[in-house]
Amino acid sequence: MPYVNIKITKEGATAEQKARLIQGVTQLLVDILGKNPKTTIVVIDEVDTDHWGIGGETVTSLRRKR
Amino acid sequence: MPYVNIKITKEGATAEQKARLIQGVTQLLVDILGKNPKTTIVVIDEVDTDHWGIGGETVTSLRRKR
Amino acid sequence: MPYVNIKITKEGATAEQKARLIQGVTQLLVDILGKNPKTTIVVIDEVDTDHWGIGGETVTSLRRKR
Amino acid sequence: MPYVNIKITKEGATAEQKARLIQGVTQLLVDILGKNPKTTIVVIDEVDTDHWGIGGETVTSLRRKR
Amino acid sequence: MPYVNIKITKEGATAEQKARLIQGVTQLLVDILGKNPKTTIVVIDEVDTDHWGIGGETVTSLRRKR
Amino acid sequence: MPYVNIKITKEGATAEQKARLIQGVTQLLVDILGKNPKTTIVVIDEVDTDHWGIGGETVTSLRRKR
Repeated sequence: MPYVNIKITKEGATAEQKARLIQGVTQLLVDILGKNPKTTIVVIDEVDTDHWGIGGETVTSLRRKR
Repeated sequence: MPYVNIKITKEGATAEQKARLIQGVTQLLVDILGKNPKTTIVVIDEVDTDHWGIGGETVTSLRRKR
Repeated sequence: MPYVNIKITKEGATAEQKARLIQGVTQLLVDILGKNPKTTIVVIDEVDTDHWGIGGETVTSLRRKR
Repeated sequence: MPYVNIKITKEGATAEQKARLIQGVTQLLVDILGKNPKTTIVVIDEVDTDHWGIGGETVTSLRRKR
Repeated sequence: MPYVNIKITKEGATAEQKARLIQGVTQLLVDILGKNPKTTIVVIDEVDTDHWGIGGETVTSLRRKR
Repeated sequence: MPYVNIKITKEGATAEQKARLIQGVTQLLVDILGKNPKTTIVVIDEVDTDHWGIGGETVTSLRRKR
């Protein structure tokens, strides 16, 4: 019955990587807490780099500096 | 003053259905808890089926099997 | 498969009222969008009035004025 | 280490305004709570006016009336 | 830089299990997406069974029936 | 109409500091985006250090090392 929300910046994760992430997180909840996978929901949000800030700066601005 | 967030998969809900959902949820908060509708916020997130997992699988993959 | 999160201030809602809210919101998702209730999750967060702000003020402070 | 999520309707906020918002909120957490900005994350969600309800109505419908 | 929120019902998960969950989810984000663990935040919410609904019923009510 | 959620670890923030945070964030939304403060909601979640992970470790464990 757990609900998991994963937020990452939108920087090219593939559908296959996201599917593996969903599968892996669900499995962890089964292995560690004995949760029922059938009602375990995992939602991934990909966030535009203009909308994600760290250290007071947008990721768009941080990527430009590198 | 309540805040409600509804997450559904992006599978064709119409603007009219979403408007009815917002209206219905707000009314429930008025009827059951006596909340003030004027400051009741309802936010709907429609999530891509690649980004929604249940049972360790993406909804994209589940829909393909049916 | 929807996931709903309802945030209200902690001001005396009873377990019975919360149960009715969960039941009502789930039913709306069935009626309006045809969702499967069995995998519909509703989570209620009751938030301390010191932790809820509206109009730039905490609800604790607003309640005191009334 | 704080995490901040800001939800606004999608009604024309510029990248520069969002960057100022991220910078301002991060600075508040430093100034008021002494938090470390380096691990402070701010995520902005811009929500379609069809998906945002207040007073039981979508913002799309409210804007039309004005 | 990812942010992960895990919501589970409050039914006896130990501090050690939660620590393993945080460690496991962080490692998945490193392994699958190459994310930097140093700025990866995982927040666990334990939710009262009165506040969690599935199938239109609270978990408190579901547990009683078993 | 914005909704802001601020998550911090539970490590002694006072009611007065939280009130200043609510006031400051609301003012930023007015100043930068011209939002209406009357319907701006700010919710603060204080999270137990056992439930907050960064770098794959709980904050409880990180604080012990210092």
